[in-house]
Amino acid sequence: MSHTQIAIVGAGLIGRAWAYVFARAGSTVRVWDADPAALDRLPAEIAAMIDAAGGDPAIAARIRAVPTLAEALDAAGLVQENGPERIEVKRELFAAMDAAAAPGTILASSSSALPASAFSAGLPGAARCLVAHPVNPPHVVPVVELCPSPATDPAVMARAQAIYAAAGQVPVLLSREIEGFVLNRLQAALLAEAMRLVDEGICTVEGLDDTVKHGLGRRWAIMGPLETISLNAPDGVPDYIRRYGPMLAGLADSCAQGDAFTASAAERVAAAFPQRATPEGVRAGTAWRDAELAALDTHLRSRARKD
Amino acid sequence: MSHTQIAIVGAGLIGRAWAYVFARAGSTVRVWDADPAALDRLPAEIAAMIDAAGGDPAIAARIRAVPTLAEALDAAGLVQENGPERIEVKRELFAAMDAAAAPGTILASSSSALPASAFSAGLPGAARCLVAHPVNPPHVVPVVELCPSPATDPAVMARAQAIYAAAGQVPVLLSREIEGFVLNRLQAALLAEAMRLVDEGICTVEGLDDTVKHGLGRRWAIMGPLETISLNAPDGVPDYIRRYGPMLAGLADSCAQGDAFTASAAERVAAAFPQRATPEGVRAGTAWRDAELAALDTHLRSRARKD
Repeated sequence: MSHTQIAIVGAGLIGRAWAYVFARAGSTVRVWDADPAALDRLPAEIAAMIDAAGGDPAIAARIRAVPTLAEALDAAGLVQENGPERIEVKRELFAAMDAAAAPGTILASSSSALPASAFSAGLPGAARCLVAHPVNPPHVVPVVELCPSPATDPAVMARAQAIYAAAGQVPVLLSREIEGFVLNRLQAALLAEAMRLVDEGICTVEGLDDTVKHGLGRRWAIMGPLETISLNAPDGVPDYIRRYGPMLAGLADSCAQGDAFTASAAERVAAAFPQRATPEGVRAGTAWRDAELAALDTHLRSRARKD
Repeated sequence: MSHTQIAIVGAGLIGRAWAYVFARAGSTVRVWDADPAALDRLPAEIAAMIDAAGGDPAIAARIRAVPTLAEALDAAGLVQENGPERIEVKRELFAAMDAAAAPGTILASSSSALPASAFSAGLPGAARCLVAHPVNPPHVVPVVELCPSPATDPAVMARAQAIYAAAGQVPVLLSREIEGFVLNRLQAALLAEAMRLVDEGICTVEGLDDTVKHGLGRRWAIMGPLETISLNAPDGVPDYIRRYGPMLAGLADSCAQGDAFTASAAERVAAAFPQRATPEGVRAGTAWRDAELAALDTHLRSRARKD
């Protein structure tokens, strides 16, 4: 299972990180992109990733750029598609992938917003299509949301789950399509209230972030939000909901919703990060973030082994 | 500043952890509790904390149980109150503390739900009373929410902020009273949607927790939610809100609110943690959690020093 051959379609930031993830786990990876220049840059960019992560140089030898979609898909057990997040592009790509891939090949999209039904409905191979939504960058953030369309075969979901797990990721299975999947729904719920608290001046942007990074977020990074509450009352979860459910319900009822994403809130947040107003500043910030995510991943994996 | 003398009122779990925090930073700490048995247990419990945390044995020598409230408050720069979360108890304690403390002493409550106005309104020293809400346990989770009542003197807030920061905590200042302060509002917003997703069977309890602990929660533990979005579009926050604001608003509008805290959702979550159904199971779980939080705190502090 750990050596399933993988095809990567789309050699942008996410596609390259997926190539790295699968090759790191021992898979042979073929990468195709509609833009030949993206393929020309691939070896240098993979070398840079290995360098930054202190990865095994052998990883690069398992990744090969190929000039056609058909060559990439040949003998692949799973295709990870990373095209632009535009419905007409994804539809065209999935039709081409479905026509070119052998019958047993799984076709997965990194889409963060489009559900699989939007680009696979009506295809002969709709049953082998799904969304496999990563967090950027997947080589240091292991979760991947696996979301079927109504046509996806449950056996395909189970095989996909095994392939991502064998690659060292943490697959999360959704039972059916839902807007935003799970991760972005949770993010939106928290962000709406965060934007409102900052916009109303209850605390500063820094104070808001401190509350999460030096408080709530630490428990969540170790346990997630539901295991967190399993430890917050003497008799477990039912006891917790009896004690704190009414208070939490009252708070949730008064939390902000969609109207919190205002230009004024955005300006307050932007003003707290003046160094992130340009693409260069954002790039420097993401390099720092990715190094911290890598260090945190190493820390958390070392703890997990002790349990 | 780092040697402000501290009084701890209430020697339960939170009170003891506060004693440890301040003594670890070099302060002399006097602890009083209405229950003499709690004071008798204090030395053994502080010794156990030092042992578990690999702390300096000198910490214990800075903490002293005293038989009266007046003795605890004598010469204290700040009082940290940790009584039961019942309004009549807090009112009585704050009246007694205000009568006994020297004029310059700050009176702070660990209250997680009661606002300072509820127990300090009308006291002669209402201007020196505030809430200083920690996350349990404060010696390994540094955030502390500082929330004034309408009567609290801003100079008192600034002094309290400096005292907590000197003790190694991360104080977050709120501008005014709000139900749930910041931390529990953010928690309630996310938990409501988490409970609903699990109750509707979109994903399992484990899948929900995995989405956060192996994804979203890692970014948040490093940066908080707002710095996170400052890195998610090439031109920073305004660019992010232009690109993703409408999607996030749509998700937030369809997120669950208070009615998600149902008995059925609680049962689903409880079923995922059968080992946490008894006080013994919860205690074993919190010991594991606190060890993980301590290790994460050490990791994050070591990274912070490199920046």
